[in-house]
Amino acid sequence: MIYELVIPQFVKTLKNLDSMLDKAAGYADSKKFETDVLLNSRLAPDMFPLTRQIQIVCDTAKLGASRLTGIAAPVNDDSEKTLSDVKARIASTISYLQTMKPEDFKNAETCTVTTPRWEGKTLTGEQYAVHHVIPNFYFHVTTSYSILRHNGVDVGKKDFLGEMPYKLP
Amino acid sequence: MIYELVIPQFVKTLKNLDSMLDKAAGYADSKKFETDVLLNSRLAPDMFPLTRQIQIVCDTAKLGASRLTGIAAPVNDDSEKTLSDVKARIASTISYLQTMKPEDFKNAETCTVTTPRWEGKTLTGEQYAVHHVIPNFYFHVTTSYSILRHNGVDVGKKDFLGEMPYKLP
Repeated sequence: MIYELVIPQFVKTLKNLDSMLDKAAGYADSKKFETDVLLNSRLAPDMFPLTRQIQIVCDTAKLGASRLTGIAAPVNDDSEKTLSDVKARIASTISYLQTMKPEDFKNAETCTVTTPRWEGKTLTGEQYAVHHVIPNFYFHVTTSYSILRHNGVDVGKKDFLGEMPYKLP
Repeated sequence: MIYELVIPQFVKTLKNLDSMLDKAAGYADSKKFETDVLLNSRLAPDMFPLTRQIQIVCDTAKLGASRLTGIAAPVNDDSEKTLSDVKARIASTISYLQTMKPEDFKNAETCTVTTPRWEGKTLTGEQYAVHHVIPNFYFHVTTSYSILRHNGVDVGKKDFLGEMPYKLP
């Protein structure tokens, strides 16, 4: 299940986020303002703006998958400025995630995870996924969505969730 | 893992949300305005206000756990008006979740889930958790957080995530 949560579902949600950015670009165009205005928007003066929210979404997915599998993650320098830069960052994160197969996660729940910030403290892979990666990922995707919607972009819950893999009756 | 994701982690996050509401009450007090102002605040005119966001957080957790285990969920009439009503709703959701044990989830990933809205379509329990329950739950908790922070309440990422179950070095 950890593979399903971290690879196919994060890829789907990153694609949903990319589509929301296309809606944002269309809205900026129709209202004759620069998309940069949205990329620099925040919900509070001491919260990160949209570009940084999206960088953190991508880092959370990339580092989460990397630490759970031991497969080295690509390095990003967080230099994104324009809408195409941000969309390229999402695309490169999707490409990295898509290199991973279910068997890469065979030890993911029981492995030991640490990060440079934790000063030697550790979590099991399952704890890291449940308490850290998954909530953080959705936190920053939802905040990105809210920045767009607060500024008038016509996004709704379905844009966030995407299609459900329903079985028909 | 599905039990860890849906019971202990949702309970922890609901407690975090409850603590954020205490910060909101303290802020309203210090600025001499009614907490109701925050409960009725929205990030966009056509988004739900805070009270409704919290009702949906609670419903998502309650119905998610109920459909994955087959254990009937309590019925709520969504009549919450005041901060204490909303806090009581969170507390009752936590109490319901805490009745569940890991073995109640033994068929959760493979069971078949449907809802009255899906017109006969179904998901497996795993798909329902991954594509629906978990993203929706964090979506509405994050939106609640953002409504508070947008209005000046001093909440930060740690209030959202809560404590990590670190093992010390």
